[in-house]
Amino acid sequence: MENKEVHDLIIIGGSAAATAAGIYAARRGLNFKIITKDFGGEVATSGEIGNWPGINKTDGITLAGQFKEHLRYYGVEPEEGVEVEKVLVEPDGSFLVKSNNGNYAAKTVIMTTGVHPRELGVTGEKEFRNKGVSYCTVCDGPLFAGKNVATVGGGNSALESALMLSDIASQVYVINKNAQFKGDQILIDNLNKKNNVKITYDASTTAIIGDQFVTSLKYNDSSGSEKEIKVDGIFVHIGMVPNSSLAPDETAKDQFGQIKVNANCETNVPGLYAAGDVTDTPHKQIVIAAGMGTCALLSAVNYLNRMK
Amino acid sequence: MENKEVHDLIIIGGSAAATAAGIYAARRGLNFKIITKDFGGEVATSGEIGNWPGINKTDGITLAGQFKEHLRYYGVEPEEGVEVEKVLVEPDGSFLVKSNNGNYAAKTVIMTTGVHPRELGVTGEKEFRNKGVSYCTVCDGPLFAGKNVATVGGGNSALESALMLSDIASQVYVINKNAQFKGDQILIDNLNKKNNVKITYDASTTAIIGDQFVTSLKYNDSSGSEKEIKVDGIFVHIGMVPNSSLAPDETAKDQFGQIKVNANCETNVPGLYAAGDVTDTPHKQIVIAAGMGTCALLSAVNYLNRMK
Repeated sequence: MENKEVHDLIIIGGSAAATAAGIYAARRGLNFKIITKDFGGEVATSGEIGNWPGINKTDGITLAGQFKEHLRYYGVEPEEGVEVEKVLVEPDGSFLVKSNNGNYAAKTVIMTTGVHPRELGVTGEKEFRNKGVSYCTVCDGPLFAGKNVATVGGGNSALESALMLSDIASQVYVINKNAQFKGDQILIDNLNKKNNVKITYDASTTAIIGDQFVTSLKYNDSSGSEKEIKVDGIFVHIGMVPNSSLAPDETAKDQFGQIKVNANCETNVPGLYAAGDVTDTPHKQIVIAAGMGTCALLSAVNYLNRMK
Repeated sequence: MENKEVHDLIIIGGSAAATAAGIYAARRGLNFKIITKDFGGEVATSGEIGNWPGINKTDGITLAGQFKEHLRYYGVEPEEGVEVEKVLVEPDGSFLVKSNNGNYAAKTVIMTTGVHPRELGVTGEKEFRNKGVSYCTVCDGPLFAGKNVATVGGGNSALESALMLSDIASQVYVINKNAQFKGDQILIDNLNKKNNVKITYDASTTAIIGDQFVTSLKYNDSSGSEKEIKVDGIFVHIGMVPNSSLAPDETAKDQFGQIKVNANCETNVPGLYAAGDVTDTPHKQIVIAAGMGTCALLSAVNYLNRMK
């Protein structure tokens, strides 16, 4: 399908940032579409959510459903099943969004394509995702009060995960595949002061075991022999991979492939905005993504007003 | 009352940014307080709200109530009636928050003190606030579909208000007290193209008239004679005043008195964060404030972790 219509805006993605942008775009009367592989994104996979302001306790599926319902209330139906291959900048500065559903032409584009966690790639990891395996300690850590947990990783994210878990869980194991941490010294020092944290270096995770829920983690130690620790939760913090490869080649990214944005959610490409986890914002949270989606949309509106 | 306890964090303010920061602070187990003159802030005065993601339609009082309930769910009771006079930076880099309720000592402070709209100071303005008088076109403009409205002001905010209203309302009057606009030319050009917008220059608003709801606006024209226009809504865009005077004297502010923050919601003062409308973020929206409150809190947590 070729779509020759030039939209004011194409929003790529289908989670909190896309929802917030879509709600504001509808209220501002823009000619726009939300296109996404599937609706819900990181929100829908979040399990229990206690930090969406105004809702004491919900879950990812429910909140994503409310987001979709809110868009529908404004007559916006996200186009799902659309996999964007590439966004191209046209000679006139407009955009061509190439997808498996044909091309979309647009004056502005907001990228809210999120991230995916780097996986360990071990047995049991996919099976026990959200059944003890988590990639977000801030989100899911509070669910493991008094339990035994493991953090896998060796950078700041893993250190912060382990520090947080040490205040919540009974026993925290840190499984670091390297001989030392790559994070900030002060975090390492603080972690070493904790008396319920056991750090294992040169430890390569080999399997995640469980029945209904995670029961243990297996790893090879520095001598190559396999060990098993009993844990209820496993927090994998070995990096996130931003879904940014489809951004125009002109787009400035940081060393992690995250799209660089300023406080207005503008990228270096005029008319191209980004919001949420795909950007270089340091904190990946639903409400931050929603705020950024709104910010990106309002910046896009100002850009369109100046174009008219 | 003197409070000698040194808190991890004092959050000053009681609206969306404070709520989001408070929820995350509680989940992270910080020793903190929320202190505010009154809870609800700009949210509570917003009238109908259709752009808080996940809730199709609500109102400011209800949403502010949900925010407070969410804090209480985590055992956080904002201290209301607290008017902060000044935040001081101590020689050791910690903070002393001086208030009518005594002093609070803290390692970190998040300022979410918001803004107040600059008022016209004319008869009827206070009486018809939220009964036709609004200070936020993005928030309230959609409620005036097909009606007659006036925007008062002459800067970009007023121009954007009038441009937005021209797509929504039947007739838009722009009352500019100066002989020309002070905003961007392209916005002025675009406004001049609209055929349902009537601009009056050198017009000084003198009174807002109504019964249950606004019915008209009176102004003195350039010759000094009083005119009256029939309108259902009046959007006052003559500037916002950030509530930033209580920030430490060391705090960097922009030309409007807004507290400068980076993408991490850090100010130039280590340990001092700001979020929401009191900052130099260009877009003043509830969900943006909530996102920034979360961002500020997570930055403060990282700072505290590095202090330990």
